[in-house]
Amino acid sequence: MNYSKLGGILGKIMILEGILMLAPLTVSFVYKESLVHKLAFLIPIIILALFGGLLQLLKPRRNSLYQKEGFALVAMVWIVMTLFGAIPFVINGEIPNYIDACFEMMSGFTTTGSSVISDLTVISHSTLFWRSFSHWIGGMGILVFILIFIPESNEGYSMHLLRAESPGPQVGKIVSKMKVTTRILYLIYLGMTVLEVIILMLDKPIPGYEKDQLFLSLLATFGCAGTGGFGFIPGSIELFHPFSQYVMSIFLILFGCNFSLYYLLLIGKVKDVLKSEEFRSYFLIVGLAVLFVFLSLVGRFEAFPQTYTTEESFRHSLFQVASLMTTAGYTTTDYDVWPMLGKSALIVVMFIGAMAGSTAGGIKVSRIVMAVKGSYINVRKLINPRYVPKAEFEGKSLEEKTLNDVFAFITLYFFIFVMAIFLLSFDPLNGQTVTVVSDAGTYNVTHGFFSNFSAALTCISNVGPAFEAVGPYSSFAGYSHFSKIVLTLTMLLGRLEILPVFVLFSPRTWKKI
Amino acid sequence: MNYSKLGGILGKIMILEGILMLAPLTVSFVYKESLVHKLAFLIPIIILALFGGLLQLLKPRRNSLYQKEGFALVAMVWIVMTLFGAIPFVINGEIPNYIDACFEMMSGFTTTGSSVISDLTVISHSTLFWRSFSHWIGGMGILVFILIFIPESNEGYSMHLLRAESPGPQVGKIVSKMKVTTRILYLIYLGMTVLEVIILMLDKPIPGYEKDQLFLSLLATFGCAGTGGFGFIPGSIELFHPFSQYVMSIFLILFGCNFSLYYLLLIGKVKDVLKSEEFRSYFLIVGLAVLFVFLSLVGRFEAFPQTYTTEESFRHSLFQVASLMTTAGYTTTDYDVWPMLGKSALIVVMFIGAMAGSTAGGIKVSRIVMAVKGSYINVRKLINPRYVPKAEFEGKSLEEKTLNDVFAFITLYFFIFVMAIFLLSFDPLNGQTVTVVSDAGTYNVTHGFFSNFSAALTCISNVGPAFEAVGPYSSFAGYSHFSKIVLTLTMLLGRLEILPVFVLFSPRTWKKI
Repeated sequence: MNYSKLGGILGKIMILEGILMLAPLTVSFVYKESLVHKLAFLIPIIILALFGGLLQLLKPRRNSLYQKEGFALVAMVWIVMTLFGAIPFVINGEIPNYIDACFEMMSGFTTTGSSVISDLTVISHSTLFWRSFSHWIGGMGILVFILIFIPESNEGYSMHLLRAESPGPQVGKIVSKMKVTTRILYLIYLGMTVLEVIILMLDKPIPGYEKDQLFLSLLATFGCAGTGGFGFIPGSIELFHPFSQYVMSIFLILFGCNFSLYYLLLIGKVKDVLKSEEFRSYFLIVGLAVLFVFLSLVGRFEAFPQTYTTEESFRHSLFQVASLMTTAGYTTTDYDVWPMLGKSALIVVMFIGAMAGSTAGGIKVSRIVMAVKGSYINVRKLINPRYVPKAEFEGKSLEEKTLNDVFAFITLYFFIFVMAIFLLSFDPLNGQTVTVVSDAGTYNVTHGFFSNFSAALTCISNVGPAFEAVGPYSSFAGYSHFSKIVLTLTMLLGRLEILPVFVLFSPRTWKKI
Repeated sequence: MNYSKLGGILGKIMILEGILMLAPLTVSFVYKESLVHKLAFLIPIIILALFGGLLQLLKPRRNSLYQKEGFALVAMVWIVMTLFGAIPFVINGEIPNYIDACFEMMSGFTTTGSSVISDLTVISHSTLFWRSFSHWIGGMGILVFILIFIPESNEGYSMHLLRAESPGPQVGKIVSKMKVTTRILYLIYLGMTVLEVIILMLDKPIPGYEKDQLFLSLLATFGCAGTGGFGFIPGSIELFHPFSQYVMSIFLILFGCNFSLYYLLLIGKVKDVLKSEEFRSYFLIVGLAVLFVFLSLVGRFEAFPQTYTTEESFRHSLFQVASLMTTAGYTTTDYDVWPMLGKSALIVVMFIGAMAGSTAGGIKVSRIVMAVKGSYINVRKLINPRYVPKAEFEGKSLEEKTLNDVFAFITLYFFIFVMAIFLLSFDPLNGQTVTVVSDAGTYNVTHGFFSNFSAALTCISNVGPAFEAVGPYSSFAGYSHFSKIVLTLTMLLGRLEILPVFVLFSPRTWKKI
């Protein structure tokens, strides 16, 4: 292992995190928070600068990185950022336990949005800002990971990962120079972020939060952009006006698109975008899911407490599908009490996730489409053993190797998912009753199998809220430390698409060669 | 399509089913049942003989079958047997609705064991016999399917299916002549069946069923052999004495073994059996699952109503793991009220299933082992792109093609599973309350997500009972006809390992070539 080089890069990341922490520090000054709230960020900033600076003194023996070092590095970056990012919460005492704080921070950087905070009203502005800001940072990180890092190592698995990941218009070839690509993607990301903030500011302020409109618009947008979904006022997005809810739905769906499509739009290749199979499948799935959820709400085949107007039913259907499919996890209403059809449709889109090359988690639409095509090929081969597959995806022939990576990924995704459910079953929380207060009223739910199932799903797909006892109006606070560590790792596995995490923890990676 | 040849084979199957129905007809004479109960079997026997005989008049233009015709045939055999096998229940009025009766029969032949009958005490002996007998027939059919049919077509996918299916000692090569192989396997199946009946007869009779000991021993054994699990007295196996419960646990585990291992035992190759990786993994998983379930019961980390002695805790743990992992589905106690750890362990083994080349359903231990090895290879490749995989399974090198089939299968398994859950969410039963009477007392459960999840799982893995509202002491009677059709198809897909069913329903199969 090229420890010195790895150390140097990690050091730079630490310095970067220190710089990013200046933002919540500024917020704590703007909102005139107490000294401890300012120190909560100042202390880690100093630590990060100090350690990060010291690591710069290392002189790398070799300047390049092996592929395995690259993958291990990616996983380490997420872990290091989480370990240091969690410090402020412990210092200001708003999440006193360090394991809880790490859960929260990993949930932030992986853009999951599951939270251990039960009462948001007692949380300071700087903490709220740092949590949501971590979604936005995480979203950028994913773009780097997917679009910049992987094409650099150009042999073996990684190229297939790239192909599986962003199969549309080959990302690596958009612009030959990597740095230019990064800059373009960041500008698109930044541009869309600014645009959403501006549009949200056009809405009338939320009663009781008149002075905080910019603050709330920023935080709401951070979550949309990174497809995270930490709440920052009670009830997530419930108190936002319908206009804002529609705006956020649309931006969520847009942030769930492959970012290279925006580049194609910018250079005028609209037809290429419309021809993209993943793009079409994505909107088809969104449309169908909204339809099923909407039908389940207006049909009232099953009794549920809320009484929505038709407009509300449509708005909540659109918002929840957009929010859960893009794996953001914002909520406008308590969907946990909805009829089974609506809930099942939401669970299906939580598995699928949005498009590859976006900030969303989940299996990804491209993989689902390729897996369906691959299965079709297998049936064709059974029907005629001499059949030579000519399947295409996004205008390119679908190679056997790509299909295999897709199948292997989905298999592993389900294995880890089932394993997480099993590990959560050790929790003493199982069988306990939790009281939920939501727009559907006050009611009790038992922490049962569905709670663990949906908690595992929401973490591996980086969604955020789950169902039943860990539903949209509850928190993950009740889980034991063991369960929180399991879920923290599950989020990381989901975020980094599993294999890089295994590379990090494999003893072979650390052997001398 | 070679319709005439297919028709001829289906005709032979129909005649065979007619002959097999003579057994329940005999039972109805022995128990001096009413005329309608005798007619219930006589009428379909006459229909089957007539149609089957007429189909023999077809003169095949060509004597061989293409691979696609073979696969379509296998799926058709199961469907035809179900459609005719369901007739007696409608005639004798014990399952008056034909869709319900087909669900029951498909559940029988696929050796699932899910039932729509709520009250077994009002069901005649002949019906009980035919249901359980269908498990035994189904078990034989699976052996034919796996061990005889597939090696006949020797190109393309099917060989890989075989390799994935029974990778241990290559089944096809045990004895070169297929007919001899069949005969040996049937003799082993028959021998083990007779042995279990004899041992069960050694136990003292169940109070209240003194005259029926042979009948009950036969039915219990049919379920064990086919790894079905229809109940035939109230409470499934709850009333059986501990001795019988232990005997059945052991036989269940034995029937979950790859049958070619028994052949190896017969010819004295004990070492080869003990060296089999699937064999070792199977017993490891059984052992771990029993341990976890046992710990959850004696630990009482969560409150649950039953008070077991330590021996009872062990017996129920062993029995339920054996029963659910081999996908039989017999029960000795209401496991639905157990702590989450026990329930989750049972769910994991329901996914896994027993060994390939057995009568069990599920993903199969061999596929799980291969998928884990394949994932390990993928990580190794990431660590070192020049890594040339040298993985072996059962002493043979694990080819890329085999791994891909395994990953593709597991992916499709989960897709169908999730799709079934989604389709069940349309059922008006969702949200309804069901009253359960079991050894844990009388209690109400709501038909929720876990009910649909476990119903889909129990059907695709051919287990039988599920959890929550469709738990071991409930039935599937409450589901709508649409849901029952979905679950019937799910059982068939699980039983035939998915692809043959798609071949049957693909328009391409029926095109002229």
